[in-house]
Amino acid sequence: MNYATIIYTLGYLLQFEGVFLLAPFAVAVYYDNDEKWMLLGVAAAAALVGTILRLLTRKRRKGKGIHAKEGFIITALSWIIMSAVGAIPFVLSGWIPSFTDAMFEVVSGFTTTGASILTNIEALPRSLLFWRSFTHWIGGMGVLVFMLAVIPSSADEMNIMRAESPGPVVDKLVPKVRQSAFILYAIYAGMTVAEIVILILEGMPTFDSFCLSFGTAGTGGFGIKADSIASYSPLCQNTITIAMFLFGVNFKAYYLILMRKFKGLLKCEEIFWYFIIYAGAVAIICFDMANDIGSIGLTIRQATFQVSSVMTTTGYATTEFNNWHTLSKAIMVGAMFVGACAGSTGGGIKVSRIVLYFKQVHREMFKFVHPRSVKNVRLDGDKVDEETLRQANVYLMAYFFIFAVSFLLVCLDGFDLISSFTAIVATINNIGPGLEMVGPTGSFVAFSILSKWVLILDMLIGRLEIFPILILFHLGTWRKK
Amino acid sequence: MNYATIIYTLGYLLQFEGVFLLAPFAVAVYYDNDEKWMLLGVAAAAALVGTILRLLTRKRRKGKGIHAKEGFIITALSWIIMSAVGAIPFVLSGWIPSFTDAMFEVVSGFTTTGASILTNIEALPRSLLFWRSFTHWIGGMGVLVFMLAVIPSSADEMNIMRAESPGPVVDKLVPKVRQSAFILYAIYAGMTVAEIVILILEGMPTFDSFCLSFGTAGTGGFGIKADSIASYSPLCQNTITIAMFLFGVNFKAYYLILMRKFKGLLKCEEIFWYFIIYAGAVAIICFDMANDIGSIGLTIRQATFQVSSVMTTTGYATTEFNNWHTLSKAIMVGAMFVGACAGSTGGGIKVSRIVLYFKQVHREMFKFVHPRSVKNVRLDGDKVDEETLRQANVYLMAYFFIFAVSFLLVCLDGFDLISSFTAIVATINNIGPGLEMVGPTGSFVAFSILSKWVLILDMLIGRLEIFPILILFHLGTWRKK
Repeated sequence: MNYATIIYTLGYLLQFEGVFLLAPFAVAVYYDNDEKWMLLGVAAAAALVGTILRLLTRKRRKGKGIHAKEGFIITALSWIIMSAVGAIPFVLSGWIPSFTDAMFEVVSGFTTTGASILTNIEALPRSLLFWRSFTHWIGGMGVLVFMLAVIPSSADEMNIMRAESPGPVVDKLVPKVRQSAFILYAIYAGMTVAEIVILILEGMPTFDSFCLSFGTAGTGGFGIKADSIASYSPLCQNTITIAMFLFGVNFKAYYLILMRKFKGLLKCEEIFWYFIIYAGAVAIICFDMANDIGSIGLTIRQATFQVSSVMTTTGYATTEFNNWHTLSKAIMVGAMFVGACAGSTGGGIKVSRIVLYFKQVHREMFKFVHPRSVKNVRLDGDKVDEETLRQANVYLMAYFFIFAVSFLLVCLDGFDLISSFTAIVATINNIGPGLEMVGPTGSFVAFSILSKWVLILDMLIGRLEIFPILILFHLGTWRKK
Repeated sequence: MNYATIIYTLGYLLQFEGVFLLAPFAVAVYYDNDEKWMLLGVAAAAALVGTILRLLTRKRRKGKGIHAKEGFIITALSWIIMSAVGAIPFVLSGWIPSFTDAMFEVVSGFTTTGASILTNIEALPRSLLFWRSFTHWIGGMGVLVFMLAVIPSSADEMNIMRAESPGPVVDKLVPKVRQSAFILYAIYAGMTVAEIVILILEGMPTFDSFCLSFGTAGTGGFGIKADSIASYSPLCQNTITIAMFLFGVNFKAYYLILMRKFKGLLKCEEIFWYFIIYAGAVAIICFDMANDIGSIGLTIRQATFQVSSVMTTTGYATTEFNNWHTLSKAIMVGAMFVGACAGSTGGGIKVSRIVLYFKQVHREMFKFVHPRSVKNVRLDGDKVDEETLRQANVYLMAYFFIFAVSFLLVCLDGFDLISSFTAIVATINNIGPGLEMVGPTGSFVAFSILSKWVLILDMLIGRLEIFPILILFHLGTWRKK
């Protein structure tokens, strides 16, 4: 195990987090919040500790590479430490005195889940509301990918990028990891700025535009009002609907558009199916709810918003879909499992994995009927190698094992089955709200400390796609040969 | 496609069903039920049509083999036709006038599900109660396996046995298919007779002993009383608990015991895990419910019975587990998914598949940590080939696709989420009762005709392990080359 490089990278991470924390500090100064010096102190402490860690390990890490194993460990530890540090301002300010609750809130932020233990969000000072939403933006595209984009490059960073990026196949857009990371973040930042500007032009207050755009871009879903997005104008709601949908698309698509490679874009099967599933879900909900919601316009607006929100795993809401009919609720839960595209900021199982599963079932039937034939699984016209398929399949199994164990542990609290079940669905898929007690206007505060830590782990497992966290806690990882 | 052999085999099947129908006819004569001549008529008609089909295709089928494809088609068609014929007595007698309902009840019988649309079981004449329970016994070990055991052998029957037998790997116990089938049925019949005798000795009425033993042996679960098994003596309940558990074990184990190959028995990992999961589930439920059920003895009796019942996918009940705490209900639903051992009469995903999934996750983590290593998945000490793993994995994907589509279709009826969800769990895993509306004392009668046909298909899909039914409805199967 290459401990020096691991600690060195964590040092870098803490320095970055110190810089990130200057953003809520600036907001606190602007609004003259009480928290300003505390925020500056936490930022400085994080940067200082990070600097010390880097100085201590700078020499020893030389000449040692980052293998797949170290990539997973760095990623898992980074996310845990980053969250723990990010939780400190909430504890010190007294707004979330319990460390477990603060950790829940911040992990929910960085993993872009959006599940909250707060019951009165609007009471929070603006600096903390800003930090809460900003964690979505940092976590959305991945903090390590960000670091890769801006720090001097060493070798083997692909193993970090692969461990942090979602989806069955991680493409570098261009041959160099650093450049790929830079392009991704440029697109991400550009789209976020565009959303902020449009929302401000549509009349939303500037502060709200920033927070909600961070939440959309990272597909996070922390609102800054008790009713999430319901009180904003229909125009703003529709803008967010479209923005959520766009942030759920594989970012490779935007790169292809920028490069004017429109042929490559048309080959993207995942985006095709993402759109088909989205449109299907919206159509069924409109059909199911038309008579209850009211006008056709309102029905379509609510259906498109809510489906965009859960399918991209954002978690905003403009209505209490808890009260929808059984079929519509079932569609919502189904969309939560499917999730967004690989290579987007969204969570869930991912459309491309679902497509690979479907194609494998189809291939198997073909093999039963034509036993001596050879048939490859193809995606976007290219053969998918058996290793990628195997990893996607193992992902599904691990997903359900973790789901089942988490569900049983959360059931110990004795809340109803639907709340317990959808609490897991909403966290492991990084959505935020579930149904019943944890519905759009509910909260996770009532769960026991054990359940909260289970859900915290589920959020990390969901965001990092299972294996980094499993490998961190796997004894075999730490055993000497 | 080898149509002649398919029709010839279906002819055989109808002849056999004619013979089977003589059993309820005999019961009807004994109790002087009104249905006796009707039952004899249906039996004679089935046998006659079967004979005609065989005569018509006898010559043309010669020299044509049964490939994997034909094995699946024969199996799927056999089960559908057998159920349709088996439903006729319920329709003609007027006890279940709707053909959909009768088909639901009989498919539930043959697939050993035990889900019922009847609301007043005790009103039924004994001949029909007997036929209902007898279908469990016929379906449990497989009607085609039974045919293979007793009719003159032709080649390639392994493809039928493989299509009808549950589990990821189908072992022949001995090199010859016919002998293997014969041994399986001998063990099956011997254990059933033993249960009948023990229950009679324990004071259960003879008729009840027969019906309940058929339901146990096939892991079916049709009761003959409104409260299922609750009104029988504790001794009888415990006997059934043990019997259910034993019928959920891979029958290979009993063959090994008969052959005194005890070393082979100890190598059976599936049976080990079956026992561990069973004991774990019982322990958690006892811990969770101890204060509510009453005495320790009663708690253990109810927990062991209910877990035996759902894990083997039988579906008997001695208590309304609908009213248990959330954790215990979650354990029950979890056990429903796990199911029994492969090569038993039970349904569900099967313990051996769960073990294979778990081992694959473990292997993947090992591969991440040691990228250049080669590691095989082993079961019972032997390497499991990649094709078997692939089929087990594809099974899981197909299972969840079918589950999701069925769930959405059933949600159209607008019943609550838990009833709709567990209705699918209870049918696709061939259990019988679910929770809420379809709980142990509930009924499936309220579902729409569409939902009932969806659930009928799910029961067949569950019993035949997905692929025979999928291949029957797959266009590619019927396309000429």
